[in-house]
Amino acid sequence: MSASTAEITEYCLKTAQAARKASYQLASLDAEVKNRWLGESAAALIKSEKKIVAANQIDLDAAAGYGLSDAAIDRLRLDSGRIASIATALEEIAMLPDPIGEVIDGFTRPGGLQILKRRVPLGVVFFIYESRPNVTADAAGICVKSGNAVILRGGKEAIHSSQAIVDVLAKTASHCGLPENAVQLVSTTDRAAVGEFLKLGELIDVTIPRGGEGLIRRVAAEATMPVIKHFDGNCHVYVDKDADIEMAVEIIENAKCQRMGVCNACESLLIHEAIASKALPEIAKRLTERGVEMRADERAKSIVPSATAATEEDWSTEYLGPTISVAVVDTIEQAAEHINRYGSHHTDAIVTGNLKAAEIFTTLVDSSAVMVNASTRFNDGGVFGLGAEIGISTDKFHARGPCGLRELTTYKYIVRGDGHVRT
Amino acid sequence: MSASTAEITEYCLKTAQAARKASYQLASLDAEVKNRWLGESAAALIKSEKKIVAANQIDLDAAAGYGLSDAAIDRLRLDSGRIASIATALEEIAMLPDPIGEVIDGFTRPGGLQILKRRVPLGVVFFIYESRPNVTADAAGICVKSGNAVILRGGKEAIHSSQAIVDVLAKTASHCGLPENAVQLVSTTDRAAVGEFLKLGELIDVTIPRGGEGLIRRVAAEATMPVIKHFDGNCHVYVDKDADIEMAVEIIENAKCQRMGVCNACESLLIHEAIASKALPEIAKRLTERGVEMRADERAKSIVPSATAATEEDWSTEYLGPTISVAVVDTIEQAAEHINRYGSHHTDAIVTGNLKAAEIFTTLVDSSAVMVNASTRFNDGGVFGLGAEIGISTDKFHARGPCGLRELTTYKYIVRGDGHVRT
Repeated sequence: MSASTAEITEYCLKTAQAARKASYQLASLDAEVKNRWLGESAAALIKSEKKIVAANQIDLDAAAGYGLSDAAIDRLRLDSGRIASIATALEEIAMLPDPIGEVIDGFTRPGGLQILKRRVPLGVVFFIYESRPNVTADAAGICVKSGNAVILRGGKEAIHSSQAIVDVLAKTASHCGLPENAVQLVSTTDRAAVGEFLKLGELIDVTIPRGGEGLIRRVAAEATMPVIKHFDGNCHVYVDKDADIEMAVEIIENAKCQRMGVCNACESLLIHEAIASKALPEIAKRLTERGVEMRADERAKSIVPSATAATEEDWSTEYLGPTISVAVVDTIEQAAEHINRYGSHHTDAIVTGNLKAAEIFTTLVDSSAVMVNASTRFNDGGVFGLGAEIGISTDKFHARGPCGLRELTTYKYIVRGDGHVRT
Repeated sequence: MSASTAEITEYCLKTAQAARKASYQLASLDAEVKNRWLGESAAALIKSEKKIVAANQIDLDAAAGYGLSDAAIDRLRLDSGRIASIATALEEIAMLPDPIGEVIDGFTRPGGLQILKRRVPLGVVFFIYESRPNVTADAAGICVKSGNAVILRGGKEAIHSSQAIVDVLAKTASHCGLPENAVQLVSTTDRAAVGEFLKLGELIDVTIPRGGEGLIRRVAAEATMPVIKHFDGNCHVYVDKDADIEMAVEIIENAKCQRMGVCNACESLLIHEAIASKALPEIAKRLTERGVEMRADERAKSIVPSATAATEEDWSTEYLGPTISVAVVDTIEQAAEHINRYGSHHTDAIVTGNLKAAEIFTTLVDSSAVMVNASTRFNDGGVFGLGAEIGISTDKFHARGPCGLRELTTYKYIVRGDGHVRT
């Protein structure tokens, strides 16, 4: 793009101001209006298939020039099946209960003052994501349903596809009584625009970056507003001395291998010394069958000599591929300490038949989700029943774990008196 | 202090590491242990009256040298009555329900996975405050009751008093099974220490600054962790066309005059044009009796000629004294727009007998608390029934309005399966 810095600064400011204005209108919209927009948008996307596919073709033609892998190009591609899935996702969001207006708490105080704590939108969401164009509609749907205006910053690789989708959403908005700037796509692909938006903490209430760790760290460092994020997912499975070994093998295989490149995949295995010599060979056998390399500490390597020796760096590495680090521990407490020290506070699991052990582990491990006898892969908004998910947070502030509609809201105290004054 | 920069850096790091370690122990403490510590600390403070008063005398002797006003010196002073109040406050915190372990939500998913959302502590709180020594015990009590370790950074003017109080709390901790570093007072008064702690976002979960706007802005700008704060409180009372004028006069007088120097005092009056010529003279009469100067826009000044003409700056000024800005508006929407633009998102009130007007105002005004026919002075943790308050937040993220025990917590998902793997 040839826009000057001053032009980009002004564009970002105007976009954010328009979003702020739209957010005040959105805050008082009836659920019915938002749901009608979701439903009509779903229908309009299917009707606009030709236009969307044509726009997508422009992105596909440019993809090789961006150096996208075949897998990435496949994820970029839109056809009628995929457009139908995008539409279905919007219809599903329409069916979720509206979080806005929910009364979270309420009480009448001595003297008769009536206090309500009412759920309200955060306001303006700045959402940064990579090249999959289906995310464009998903994020717009989740933000608007929770009463927020959204500024979408998609990857340049999908810019024409995303613009075609947002055009449909915006056109439907004007039909349904939604403010026209409820959903805006950042039209410049200049990287400077991200920096400009991140300065606008007075106009934007939260930034949600989705993508590689480098992008997320940059956003977290520069943002003048709160950020919902997770940097990485160095997830652990701890096999307790009272574990069912067969169950442990199945859970580890699933957590490690079901999808290797995702944030809730298992990257590290801890095992109690009392069960290690019996369980570890069986676990190693299964992982080897699945092509997974083990990086083992001294004790684990003495049991599985074929494993590679782990270095200190391995304990904090998110491999996102066919490698797992393995360490033997003496106690549950030692396992928890290791996890809290090297992990990402994302998802960690214990395999045990012992109730007390489960209680100690779930209390001590400081992660967004702690699993007992279940795969780490279950940490997901859909699985948890949130219905739709805009991201996973490993922070403790505001929202932790999968973030759905409620996590994009805050509350407001509404106090009713009858001329009450304070004495 | 003569400590070198390197010494301060190391001191802060060690203090934060000790707090982090203590926080993991605190997270699994029974309510009984925390309550016993609160009760025994209350008793021990009263028993240690002599020591505390002697330490307080050192601060009082130094106060003039710090240029403290007589009022500030009075707030600094501890005697047996004030020590008894501090003790009572701890006993009251002991009586509040323990937020930790509360199950916020829970469900069984298709397939039998059991999911609990359980309330847990944030972890480590860094609390920065000014010279009133009673805040030392209060903040320690609230943080520990909510399962958090706390690093207290009090004003240098009260350092000996605060240290004497923390010595008592720490000694009691060791009796009661609380980790010894649950409550730590920053022993250096070097200002560089604040900056060092603010860098430690990996060890400290939240910073809460209480004090002047300059301090809070500095903390918000430098902090690498979330901050619970309000910069200022430019609070409004809007008198609707359907207001009871007598009620309006009483509420405005109370909101403006009951305590002028506090964040929930009224600083600005908006009035509907249909009622202005009748109501404004009565309001002006009462405010003049109370020695309050009015800074009025053109229309308001035409009704109250004795008022000073307001400048643009007046609309965003928090006077914290006997001045109030006054503007006439044409609609409720215009009042809300003015408040959202110039206000602090703290506390704003409407006076009206009209149900629809109340609904519009409470929906449109984007503040932590919106009052209907009640004084702005009611925005307070005690009034709202939170039991104890560590601050008021004007942010929308995490906690909004008065922050008590629950606002110092987060949650964790605990997922129980029986060998569940994801397919």
